Amino acid sequence: MGAPAIVAPRTPLAPAFVEVLRGIFGNRLHLGEAMRAQHGASETHFAAVLPDAVVFVHSTEEVVALVKACTAADVPIVAYGAGTSVEGNAVPVRGGVCVDLSEMNKILEINPDDFDCTVQAGVRREELNVALRDIGLFFPIDPGANATLGGMASTRASGTNAVRYGTMREAILSLRIVTPDGRDIRTSRRARKSAAGYDLTRLMIGSEGTLGIITEVTLRLHGIPEQISSAVCSFQSMAGAVDTVVQAIQLGIPLARVEILDDVQMKAVNQHSNLNYPELTTLFFEFHGSEHAVKEQIATVGDLARDNGGGEFHWSNLAEERAKLWKARHQAFYAATAMRKGAIGWPTDVCVPIGRLAECINETKKDLDKASFPAPILGHVGDGNFHVIFVLDPDNPAEQKEAEALNERLVQRALDMDGTCTGEHGIGLGKQDWLVRELGEDGVDMMRTIKKALDPQNLFNPGKIFAD
Amino acid sequence: MGAPAIVAPRTPLAPAFVEVLRGIFGNRLHLGEAMRAQHGASETHFAAVLPDAVVFVHSTEEVVALVKACTAADVPIVAYGAGTSVEGNAVPVRGGVCVDLSEMNKILEINPDDFDCTVQAGVRREELNVALRDIGLFFPIDPGANATLGGMASTRASGTNAVRYGTMREAILSLRIVTPDGRDIRTSRRARKSAAGYDLTRLMIGSEGTLGIITEVTLRLHGIPEQISSAVCSFQSMAGAVDTVVQAIQLGIPLARVEILDDVQMKAVNQHSNLNYPELTTLFFEFHGSEHAVKEQIATVGDLARDNGGGEFHWSNLAEERAKLWKARHQAFYAATAMRKGAIGWPTDVCVPIGRLAECINETKKDLDKASFPAPILGHVGDGNFHVIFVLDPDNPAEQKEAEALNERLVQRALDMDGTCTGEHGIGLGKQDWLVRELGEDGVDMMRTIKKALDPQNLFNPGKIFAD
Repeated sequence: MGAPAIVAPRTPLAPAFVEVLRGIFGNRLHLGEAMRAQHGASETHFAAVLPDAVVFVHSTEEVVALVKACTAADVPIVAYGAGTSVEGNAVPVRGGVCVDLSEMNKILEINPDDFDCTVQAGVRREELNVALRDIGLFFPIDPGANATLGGMASTRASGTNAVRYGTMREAILSLRIVTPDGRDIRTSRRARKSAAGYDLTRLMIGSEGTLGIITEVTLRLHGIPEQISSAVCSFQSMAGAVDTVVQAIQLGIPLARVEILDDVQMKAVNQHSNLNYPELTTLFFEFHGSEHAVKEQIATVGDLARDNGGGEFHWSNLAEERAKLWKARHQAFYAATAMRKGAIGWPTDVCVPIGRLAECINETKKDLDKASFPAPILGHVGDGNFHVIFVLDPDNPAEQKEAEALNERLVQRALDMDGTCTGEHGIGLGKQDWLVRELGEDGVDMMRTIKKALDPQNLFNPGKIFAD
Repeated sequence: MGAPAIVAPRTPLAPAFVEVLRGIFGNRLHLGEAMRAQHGASETHFAAVLPDAVVFVHSTEEVVALVKACTAADVPIVAYGAGTSVEGNAVPVRGGVCVDLSEMNKILEINPDDFDCTVQAGVRREELNVALRDIGLFFPIDPGANATLGGMASTRASGTNAVRYGTMREAILSLRIVTPDGRDIRTSRRARKSAAGYDLTRLMIGSEGTLGIITEVTLRLHGIPEQISSAVCSFQSMAGAVDTVVQAIQLGIPLARVEILDDVQMKAVNQHSNLNYPELTTLFFEFHGSEHAVKEQIATVGDLARDNGGGEFHWSNLAEERAKLWKARHQAFYAATAMRKGAIGWPTDVCVPIGRLAECINETKKDLDKASFPAPILGHVGDGNFHVIFVLDPDNPAEQKEAEALNERLVQRALDMDGTCTGEHGIGLGKQDWLVRELGEDGVDMMRTIKKALDPQNLFNPGKIFAD
């Protein structure tokens, strides 16, 4: 099930080409079906498409050699990290070689005085934070899944901390990439800002492996705050919860995290994590700063919550309380799919100007209440970004059709409010039609022109972002 | 004087083409030398090159008509805002039509609930802030000059508030542009974040009018803080001043502004603005937040300054004190050039990882102390970004040569520290060789490939960023 994968007729890999790959990768070249199936599957609702081969790369030089071999043989290349993307972003719809970067997992350098580090693309965000903890630094971008940093760059990921610390767009100082013509390019230096020519770094971020394969990522880091506190508050109405957040932002409260979970999602979280939160619309907060600053933030936000009909404002300075809270939040997707036995989750996301968020969520909620399957809402409310997870029976095509219609109305609603069809998941296979509605044929044509110029053979993750 | 402008042989505009322009623009088409000279001059040290014609546009539709006319006649087009760029970014080195956007100066919409606004490209930042003041919002990016927002987008400008609020890269939500093939494109919607395809917005920001002409800018706004305080502190050593700032950032103090001015610059400021600050390395601070938060920030930074050998820490909550301080800072360029009668100023800038900043400024200062002309240093020290202004006798070619050598050593020093050849001025004409050293031929080639694909006739601000 899932959006139909655009699978072109495929010819098997030529034996001579396979020998070239074997010469480069030896036993890190895999042709067996199990490995190919694992790399062709999507975590969500997209049909699997198997690559013809999988290679595990260990260096940028190997990626260059691979790209040259594929270009010579006219074979597609699709980069693969942790496989946690949700719009079919890494499904190799034209086959070819899947380049798995998960073994390029070295932290290359940490510069504490400069607040930055450089890692190979296969490093995962949780491992990075473990390595940073003892030197008092952290990397804030947190999409929930323990994704690779190369993958997070490719889809312009963000997540729970974006309201304060920005998205991958702001977090990345520089990338090392291999281009479709086999060049090894560093897109920028390590300075925090630069006005030196076209912003190649930002062009690569969010390009989903269609313009270059990211092999190294240089990231901006932050000092671990003196005080970190968390809070939870339930609301009788969605509007009360959203208004609390919008008013806090208007007052300039530097919220570090603020997540909204609707009643359906709270029920799923309670069941999955064995918790007993009220099953109402709920805000999860995190505050960072000096002891006094955090105390002041909590007092102000607590007042706002009360004024907007919030229940008790439970806050805590304890790390264990905080860990419990965010673990529950991070498992929201799995909690949602666990609501029905054998179900699969189809997560979708939109992002709207924050003044329209309450209205957008409210209208969506009304629409979802009529659905014949669970469809919880959760979101990064400080950014205007929220998710719906359609929890579907994979063997029921009627549910699939119903979800498609709900998704269509959701995205159109966001576009009508001058929002975007995806805040942080990327276009992949799932949002291509809406990208055209969002930016017009002319905007998408501009992307196509860039793609054609940089990848004239259309070998880097073909079929993604836009139809070619 | 100045870097030699690359002036290609020019043919006069064809009479039929001039008639087309007259048909579109009527008496807003200017062919007279005075108007052309005004639009061909640089504010700094670059030799003037006159455009063949100047037109004042009033709408995006007129820009489309102009682009179509120029493309048909193979005539270059150079966009012009306030003329405040400093690397010759808008000097029309191949002639053609200068399109002056200063009369596209309407604020189109302000959305207080969404914290954003949309303005025509010719609106200047000070006018925007006047319009925002009464609704409690402000636009933070402040490069000193009262530039147009289109121009600031084109050079990826930043300035005194970037340490807290980011640069134009972070401040812009969306752009309306006219492409070299005459299409009218909006690069994004108004959501705060998006993962929808290639980041056309960021590709346009900093492209200096070579890929598109910006006609409208949608900007992210911020609430005016409850409390704004300023402070001044002098230091016996450059290292003491820089260390104060780096330590404050390490502690997570959310400095809103922090500017460094060396002894030479302070002397110039005192003379120009009739002030009596100590003529020592000086930090100018601004703090934003709640009353308590600002008080706490001032106390902490005051302690750090004392620990690092700073003199008295003068702080104030008074708007007049603050206005005096920032007026003096904003006039730094004019104060510097006023140090010598008839002198011209050549401002240059670099940006390095902040852990290297003290060392970079110190080595630069030693080099500048030997110069035969004044060369003050001032910088956005929280970003690792600083400027040198060479104050030159325009009739003395030896000084020009000496400045070139100092600039060469400055930029190479920054690159050796993994910094950039320009933090906020852009490449224009002045930094083209260093862009190649910074990103390599392959990186610059990637830019050229994008330029050729989007502007195959090379008509949009030709000769800028890289040699073609």
